[in-house]
Amino acid sequence: MAQLFKHLKVHQIFGANTDVGKTILTTGLLRASASRKRRVFYLKPVSTGPLEEADDRFVRRHLKDLAGQLSEACLFRYDQPVSPHLAVQLSKDKGLDYGTPDDAEFVLSVSEHIQRSAHAAVEELSDMYVETAGGVHSPTLSGTSQADAYRPLFLPTILVGDAKLGGISSTISAYESLLIRGFAVDAIVMFRDSYYRNWEYLSEYFADRGVKCFSVDPPPPKDSDIAKDTSALSDYYSEVIAPDSPSNLQALVSELDSRHYDRLTQLESMSTRAMETIWWPFVQHGLVKGPQDVMTVDSAWGDFFSTYESNIGSSGGNAELHHAHDTLLSPQLDGSASWWTQALGHSSPALTLAAASAAGRYGHVMFPQAVHKPALQLAEHLVHDGPGKGWASRAFFSDDGSTGMEIALKMALRAFAKRRNISDPSERKKLGILGLKGSYHGDTIGSMDACEEGVFTCEWHNAKGYWLDPPAVSLRQGTPMLSFPDSMGEYCSSEPTQYESIADLYDISSRLSSSLASQYTKYIEEKLDRIETMGHTRIAALVMEPLVMGVAGMVFVDPLFQRILVDVVRAREPSTISAGDWSGLPVIFDEVFVGMYRLGMESCAPVLGVTPDISVYAKILTGGLIPLAVTLANNSIFQAFLSERKEDALLHGHSYTAHPVGCEVANETFKQIAILAKSPLWQHAKTSWATPSKVGQRESAIWSFWGYDFISQLSTLDVVQDVMAMGTVLAVTIRDDAGGYASFRAQNLLAPLKTLSQDNTGPGGLPARIHFRTLGNVAYFMSNLNTPETVLRSTEKRIWESLSQP
Amino acid sequence: MAQLFKHLKVHQIFGANTDVGKTILTTGLLRASASRKRRVFYLKPVSTGPLEEADDRFVRRHLKDLAGQLSEACLFRYDQPVSPHLAVQLSKDKGLDYGTPDDAEFVLSVSEHIQRSAHAAVEELSDMYVETAGGVHSPTLSGTSQADAYRPLFLPTILVGDAKLGGISSTISAYESLLIRGFAVDAIVMFRDSYYRNWEYLSEYFADRGVKCFSVDPPPPKDSDIAKDTSALSDYYSEVIAPDSPSNLQALVSELDSRHYDRLTQLESMSTRAMETIWWPFVQHGLVKGPQDVMTVDSAWGDFFSTYESNIGSSGGNAELHHAHDTLLSPQLDGSASWWTQALGHSSPALTLAAASAAGRYGHVMFPQAVHKPALQLAEHLVHDGPGKGWASRAFFSDDGSTGMEIALKMALRAFAKRRNISDPSERKKLGILGLKGSYHGDTIGSMDACEEGVFTCEWHNAKGYWLDPPAVSLRQGTPMLSFPDSMGEYCSSEPTQYESIADLYDISSRLSSSLASQYTKYIEEKLDRIETMGHTRIAALVMEPLVMGVAGMVFVDPLFQRILVDVVRAREPSTISAGDWSGLPVIFDEVFVGMYRLGMESCAPVLGVTPDISVYAKILTGGLIPLAVTLANNSIFQAFLSERKEDALLHGHSYTAHPVGCEVANETFKQIAILAKSPLWQHAKTSWATPSKVGQRESAIWSFWGYDFISQLSTLDVVQDVMAMGTVLAVTIRDDAGGYASFRAQNLLAPLKTLSQDNTGPGGLPARIHFRTLGNVAYFMSNLNTPETVLRSTEKRIWESLSQP
Repeated sequence: MAQLFKHLKVHQIFGANTDVGKTILTTGLLRASASRKRRVFYLKPVSTGPLEEADDRFVRRHLKDLAGQLSEACLFRYDQPVSPHLAVQLSKDKGLDYGTPDDAEFVLSVSEHIQRSAHAAVEELSDMYVETAGGVHSPTLSGTSQADAYRPLFLPTILVGDAKLGGISSTISAYESLLIRGFAVDAIVMFRDSYYRNWEYLSEYFADRGVKCFSVDPPPPKDSDIAKDTSALSDYYSEVIAPDSPSNLQALVSELDSRHYDRLTQLESMSTRAMETIWWPFVQHGLVKGPQDVMTVDSAWGDFFSTYESNIGSSGGNAELHHAHDTLLSPQLDGSASWWTQALGHSSPALTLAAASAAGRYGHVMFPQAVHKPALQLAEHLVHDGPGKGWASRAFFSDDGSTGMEIALKMALRAFAKRRNISDPSERKKLGILGLKGSYHGDTIGSMDACEEGVFTCEWHNAKGYWLDPPAVSLRQGTPMLSFPDSMGEYCSSEPTQYESIADLYDISSRLSSSLASQYTKYIEEKLDRIETMGHTRIAALVMEPLVMGVAGMVFVDPLFQRILVDVVRAREPSTISAGDWSGLPVIFDEVFVGMYRLGMESCAPVLGVTPDISVYAKILTGGLIPLAVTLANNSIFQAFLSERKEDALLHGHSYTAHPVGCEVANETFKQIAILAKSPLWQHAKTSWATPSKVGQRESAIWSFWGYDFISQLSTLDVVQDVMAMGTVLAVTIRDDAGGYASFRAQNLLAPLKTLSQDNTGPGGLPARIHFRTLGNVAYFMSNLNTPETVLRSTEKRIWESLSQP
Repeated sequence: MAQLFKHLKVHQIFGANTDVGKTILTTGLLRASASRKRRVFYLKPVSTGPLEEADDRFVRRHLKDLAGQLSEACLFRYDQPVSPHLAVQLSKDKGLDYGTPDDAEFVLSVSEHIQRSAHAAVEELSDMYVETAGGVHSPTLSGTSQADAYRPLFLPTILVGDAKLGGISSTISAYESLLIRGFAVDAIVMFRDSYYRNWEYLSEYFADRGVKCFSVDPPPPKDSDIAKDTSALSDYYSEVIAPDSPSNLQALVSELDSRHYDRLTQLESMSTRAMETIWWPFVQHGLVKGPQDVMTVDSAWGDFFSTYESNIGSSGGNAELHHAHDTLLSPQLDGSASWWTQALGHSSPALTLAAASAAGRYGHVMFPQAVHKPALQLAEHLVHDGPGKGWASRAFFSDDGSTGMEIALKMALRAFAKRRNISDPSERKKLGILGLKGSYHGDTIGSMDACEEGVFTCEWHNAKGYWLDPPAVSLRQGTPMLSFPDSMGEYCSSEPTQYESIADLYDISSRLSSSLASQYTKYIEEKLDRIETMGHTRIAALVMEPLVMGVAGMVFVDPLFQRILVDVVRAREPSTISAGDWSGLPVIFDEVFVGMYRLGMESCAPVLGVTPDISVYAKILTGGLIPLAVTLANNSIFQAFLSERKEDALLHGHSYTAHPVGCEVANETFKQIAILAKSPLWQHAKTSWATPSKVGQRESAIWSFWGYDFISQLSTLDVVQDVMAMGTVLAVTIRDDAGGYASFRAQNLLAPLKTLSQDNTGPGGLPARIHFRTLGNVAYFMSNLNTPETVLRSTEKRIWESLSQP
């Protein structure tokens, strides 16, 4: 991951194009740095072309007087003067395969070399320059663009501009390509061509954008006599680093120094400053004791944050692994998928470009009675091919899960009130919902009113409905179990029931004919009868999170119970109108957390074997980039708002409804997930969850990126009460008699995960921390849909070690 | 604005760099198109370098056998072979100033030429190619990058890739620069260099991104003998357009045709398809009678949408202005600033790049107990220098104005309940707010509960509070007026009071000593006494939209009334604790609509002369790109949630809280507004609102981009009841005895604005429509903070014409 050292200032050097003078300017920079009595490091990770012309040889030859100060190196060398990916291919064609590294191995090599340099850098400040090959997007060995391949290292960047005709354009475009990958471009440097004068234009252009552009006299023309050429260049280098030179390479080094120290100062102060001005969501500031309790995120990539390792603090630091010459930034696994939002990893270039292309084409466009391509494409996908397939007719966009649920509730209440002819406002205010105990639908007051009173509710909370306590699924002692709430005592067993396999437990069509199904039916019918006779609230909708209630503490609800709940509700006052119309009560599936493949499936409806009348999606909908939500509804719900009177419409809308940027990012997310769904990663995970049954291996509808064997083993540990995993989610319930929202036992037992460990490393091999969240005594871990096996397995290993060594 | 014709297929040709073969490939394309018996058009808007080497001459020379089919042209010609901006400067240096066009004039010239070509294109299909100069970001005449300068025309694009070493990188970077400006890149075309084989790599790269890459044999080496050269090239062109040629230029033309027809088909179907799957916010679908009632937005730029002119429909079309050869896309002024969100115009490259850079660096990062640079910078700006300056201590982020207000309400309720020791839950549920009649704070149920029952409220609405009917400011018959609600009859005049100037009316410090001030004080105090004795709701907060209640129908509330309301409330139960603590009741300013310069000022607090305890911002906060909201609070509010118990925290948070993309865009918005605030546009608007007073001109705190003289005149028209403007907002109340939310009179009277008119044109001189919104009998118009004078004045002219000709 990102590399940052106090005593070694590292910059990567990208070129606006090939042949813009990267090596000559880097040589000048090395000399300018060395003139400050610094040790200097030069790294050319990949070199193609004849050995005698290789850039590291050039540097060594021209800086041989700096022998004591200079280290230069090249990691991968090919002798064809072509793009690295082609050089690899040509070598293979010749039968010379050097074992080309993939991107992860490449980053590891570069990272390890930089770390070794950091250990060798003992002076006050040393300077390192990492010179890339060709232009910013020139392919590296694997064929990946360099801008993408170097991204995990997140090195601050010097862009060498192009002084030739057309160079203004290529310099700006290269800059933009770096910017959209999040790189900080610390400076531009380029030759001063007095005919095209690109540097004049670009200095002004970049000054407006807060970046200084440095211009340097071009080198003398190449002399075919090597000795003469070397001598001429030597004079040239002396000139361009002279303090009074118009070429100003010293000024460039000073600028880089100042950017470096600025960054260190910022990083050091950010946590303290955050404590002074930010009011965090869901955080008791009284428990934030000092900057060590604040995570300073410098950047993020893939599954990891890159976080600052404060010098001042006891931020869970691991002294053996962290020395003064170690990087000040450590990878930290984003173990909660950034509050359940991430699906494709942080900083996905595909999502960035989708966002940028919609911003560039539309900005935002007001949505009432309007249509734009990103919103239409998304609505059509959601309704026809996505989670609404087969039942939904309309997509209503909003901003987050909570607003999406408020819209869902407004839809259901109106549809119910209309069909039942409830026109008296005081009767309408008495409408309520039927839900499950522990449900959570978002933080706005209306969505909260669809939940019981609890720790999250505010002064205005008014629980509107009834909530049934459901049976739950988990693994205990390696066995799939179903446990029943006390409230079901007279209907079901008080002891948990064992199942042969998870596949059996989630095989609804078989279980529908079980005796338990009849017991559930009886229980629910009697409950509903009782609610109706109580009469102060009239149930107008069934609202539930299918399969898993997240905020409740990752409760894996018995799918049979949810299925029968829907069946019973729909059968009570069956619709006498067309097929597809809502029946009994409008049924809302809150799939904000569980949908969009968080649990390995786009929607949970197929597992339950019933479709809802209304459903809500958010979080992964944008792949984890920006807020966007959608409420889907079937036609009978939509019809309830249809008339010739404006007042009858669903008068709800947020300013940024269906913002093109969000919709386009969502479209790209669906595209990327479709590719992943066919990947070996997914196939392998599914296979690991296939059940060894009497008739051989059987694929389960339920599977997870977390290994079945791992969770099964975990469930046998003393400190563990329950374990369950589905899709990207792993939930571990720690035995704790206290329990509840304020429980700290899970946090304490798993605290070792927060320390640096060589057992799980970020890209580039740096020891990583694991950032995880708990819900009371439940610790959960959430991967992306493309988290590499190595990350999954090493995280499992660390969880195992924490919990098996009490 | 965007140009699209049925019978003329226009493509702009951008180069990945200079010298990549744009002209040769374009010549080949012209010939390939011509071989299909089409009329072909070639436009080189800007040419630099010797006349005999100019690209249009090259095209004419090499296609002279197509005399009857070919039109070629160059609009601006300079003889120095340098970048256009430099050629202009060199000409000026030589005393040869040809009157260089600015960007608007440049776009107008190109646009007019394209339109003339469209008129000349009579065949089944004609093809036009517009060849740009140099690379995508090469500066055009004014110095603006071409990618930005050509953006208003939004032509579909062919990118000529670079076949040389480094060309993979420059081609991808150029593509990305086009993408982030929203351009549709229809195809890549490049020479086939068998050594570097860039086309192989790029074909695969772009195929993954849905773009076809075409490769063409390189031309024969240049012959110094012109006749021989011409003959060799002639053979070359015959080869590359042959149907069986591996060069496939015919396949490229077919691809362009297919993209063109696809776009036409999409545009034609979008409105119908939208009616089938989208559920629009605030729209009664029963009143959407057909596709003509749906606005199809193909792109947007600056103040304008670019919308599809359906062939089928009566979409307010103006037959005289719209012929078969006219563009199928018309500019349409975004007269509601896209539901009050826009500030810098659509598709601002600065905002796009800010969004992309944060997406590339972080993606999203979960926020509790974490900090990242974009959020910290924004929080610090808001609290220390922005609208919170002088009073706020904390920034709490959320997703939209409605969620921001729910958070504000939760803050106020808790602070009040805590200080007054209200611990009984049933007592806490009885807390309510004091507000103004007509207030609106967003669509979620909690925010709605802070408003009276009305057309927007749903089944669960439960109005929690009391609302006072405030006096309002407007211009009538050219005179600033204050009118009083009937309910104030016993305290104030029943007739409107006239004021000498708007400046007088908004001069709170002078008016505080008026007799009206005493009347207001008495009225409010007596009201509050009465509310207290009623007792079933206990007032726990004062909530208001300062200066203007937007959704109420742009009601410009008397600022003196609001000021005294705050003063009275604060004096009733004055805090006995520290200065800066909330006193009496927590005061919430809902500045979601009025803040962030919508009314010409960052916050309305300085005009009222009091600061709130809590305030909320959204909409313009991101310059109009994506959802983000913030709730600011002073320290005494924050302290109310502080303890050692997690349960006492503000347990509210949305998954994307403080998403880096939104925060970075907000930071860029503040930067851009600071630049605009010093612009001549703003200075001029302020001057036009300065009051001619007894002691000479006097600057008014209140000013607008809409001219004072214009609104003054407008207020004298028979059909107009009131007019008022402030900042970007112009509100015109139409006389209509019916009134109310369902009134259509304003829509009907102003319907002429929806037709195409040459009186106000989009960039490129195309006749434009004006898209506007009404709130009952109030029509409003909202500009950006950078809307050009020409657009403002021509809009005023059209409004005047619509309303003065009854």
